[in-house]
Amino acid sequence: MRDYNVGIVGATGAVGAEVIKVLEKRNFPVKNIKFLASSRSAGKYLKFKEENILVEELNENSFKGVEIAFFAAGLDTSRQFAKTAVSSGAIVIDKSSAFRMKEDVPLIVPEINKDKISEHKGIIASPNCATIILVMAIYPLCKLSKIKRLIVSTYQSTSGAGAKAMEELLVQTKAYLNDEKIVKEVFPHQIAFNLFSHNTRIYENGYNDEENKIIEETKKIMDDSDIKISATCIRVPILRSHCESINVEFENKTTVDQIRESIRNSKGVKLVDDRENNYFPMPIDSSLKDEILIGRIREDISRENCVEIFVSGDQLLKGAALNAVQIAEELIEK
Amino acid sequence: MRDYNVGIVGATGAVGAEVIKVLEKRNFPVKNIKFLASSRSAGKYLKFKEENILVEELNENSFKGVEIAFFAAGLDTSRQFAKTAVSSGAIVIDKSSAFRMKEDVPLIVPEINKDKISEHKGIIASPNCATIILVMAIYPLCKLSKIKRLIVSTYQSTSGAGAKAMEELLVQTKAYLNDEKIVKEVFPHQIAFNLFSHNTRIYENGYNDEENKIIEETKKIMDDSDIKISATCIRVPILRSHCESINVEFENKTTVDQIRESIRNSKGVKLVDDRENNYFPMPIDSSLKDEILIGRIREDISRENCVEIFVSGDQLLKGAALNAVQIAEELIEK
Repeated sequence: MRDYNVGIVGATGAVGAEVIKVLEKRNFPVKNIKFLASSRSAGKYLKFKEENILVEELNENSFKGVEIAFFAAGLDTSRQFAKTAVSSGAIVIDKSSAFRMKEDVPLIVPEINKDKISEHKGIIASPNCATIILVMAIYPLCKLSKIKRLIVSTYQSTSGAGAKAMEELLVQTKAYLNDEKIVKEVFPHQIAFNLFSHNTRIYENGYNDEENKIIEETKKIMDDSDIKISATCIRVPILRSHCESINVEFENKTTVDQIRESIRNSKGVKLVDDRENNYFPMPIDSSLKDEILIGRIREDISRENCVEIFVSGDQLLKGAALNAVQIAEELIEK
Repeated sequence: MRDYNVGIVGATGAVGAEVIKVLEKRNFPVKNIKFLASSRSAGKYLKFKEENILVEELNENSFKGVEIAFFAAGLDTSRQFAKTAVSSGAIVIDKSSAFRMKEDVPLIVPEINKDKISEHKGIIASPNCATIILVMAIYPLCKLSKIKRLIVSTYQSTSGAGAKAMEELLVQTKAYLNDEKIVKEVFPHQIAFNLFSHNTRIYENGYNDEENKIIEETKKIMDDSDIKISATCIRVPILRSHCESINVEFENKTTVDQIRESIRNSKGVKLVDDRENNYFPMPIDSSLKDEILIGRIREDISRENCVEIFVSGDQLLKGAALNAVQIAEELIEK
């Protein structure tokens, strides 16, 4: 197996930093690595393995020689530079929402649809973090019976809004405890000891952009346009793991034991469903872990063929960086 | 209107403290007030209006002369002393779950079923806090069409577990920020920057005691044994307001505008549903407020005749103390 020239756009951000760590940890075959960022962050040095690497300013010429480009810098940067990277000969693995719903862009969660990677035309999209956690949780379930409907309520950590949002939670919390003024810079509302509806654009139908991503991306990843989904996305004062309360309606009856067994036999997920000790998925347990934790599995007593589950996953790892690197791993294996 | 001799059992606890404040604020016609607590808290002084009142140790003789006894001390105390209080001639307004589901005990949310108060045999129960917030939110909706099914995911604050649990959130948070050891005394899991499944006993069917309370109490308050309910109860690192994400299935179609109008015309609730400014119910807004805030009202795109809402209410006020005092107000009015 040969080594690859890798570029990371947004190397200084929350997801970028995790991509670097995941590449190191998984020993991704890197020949050369290029760290790219906006002019604000360019000039810094970041470590890769033992080496200090200069963060270069992202521009039209950044991708010369880059074979795999991870885009972890947000929607506008991907819109502006992803096609440039492809023209330069790179394959782009994009964490932003810029291309996810484009017909010629595969939207990949490797455990579920890695067979679609080969359909790429230069860009492969990695889904929204809350979407990844949702589909990872329901994939073991859909093997048992077709899923008709999902009702999702999220408990989303601050990391989804970037490193500055995580910092804002800590700074506001300190201020609260010291009886000082709460300063809001990243979020429109206080996040310390508070929670609020995900502050993305709200559509005519009342759903917000985050909810819409979950709904549309899930259909694409599951390759099932019939699946009905509703979602309510809530930001909670947590650092880096999302949780989701999910009501699953199946076409046929499934039992708790069947579901547990299917989770045990699935990759990338872990059963944490200890009723006796009241031990279920929690952010502090899923943080820094590769697996999505699934528990609180119950047959919904309000309707036949429905099941309730509660899941937790690291937003920065499987929700972002890990999934992107896994896509790259599948890509080079082919 | 005459004044009443009032007793507060558990006067030194989180709910007890709020009962005192609510009685003061609403100018409840108090002749004498008696503060009762366990031997651990007896001997302290607490203020009522301008006066210092000695906290007395609760015993069999505590209720002599008491006409209205608020029980805010938990299940065991209510089980042990509520009937003693009734025998002594008091009417008990009980915040615990001890008697809520007893057939001869009315379970009251005054805005919804105050007509049932007169059926009491000495004890009137006030519902579980998450139940109160749920029924307050759906009552304006059920006027539009019969509700068939509710799917609830909660975001419950620490106050529901008492004053010590609120303190534990603050102490653990400080420890976390100072990189010190997190000490767990009240909750089985870390609550600072974490969330977890409500740590109550789990039944054979996988639902926990808190979820079961929501399900059973809602049916009793709504006087509707047909309504189907599922709930997932989650504790979040918030101080004193609960939130709930609620999926409501109606028998017939209702519109967002009809729902908003019904909320505007209902008592004890407030519409906070500003899509343009992305402003919806939040704990920091519902805290210390009497009203339950309702927003994020959308027709559920996953199924006909279903609606999503998100609500927030002060767990200690309408979720506990305020509801109890409102029951007493209705009682003396009759």
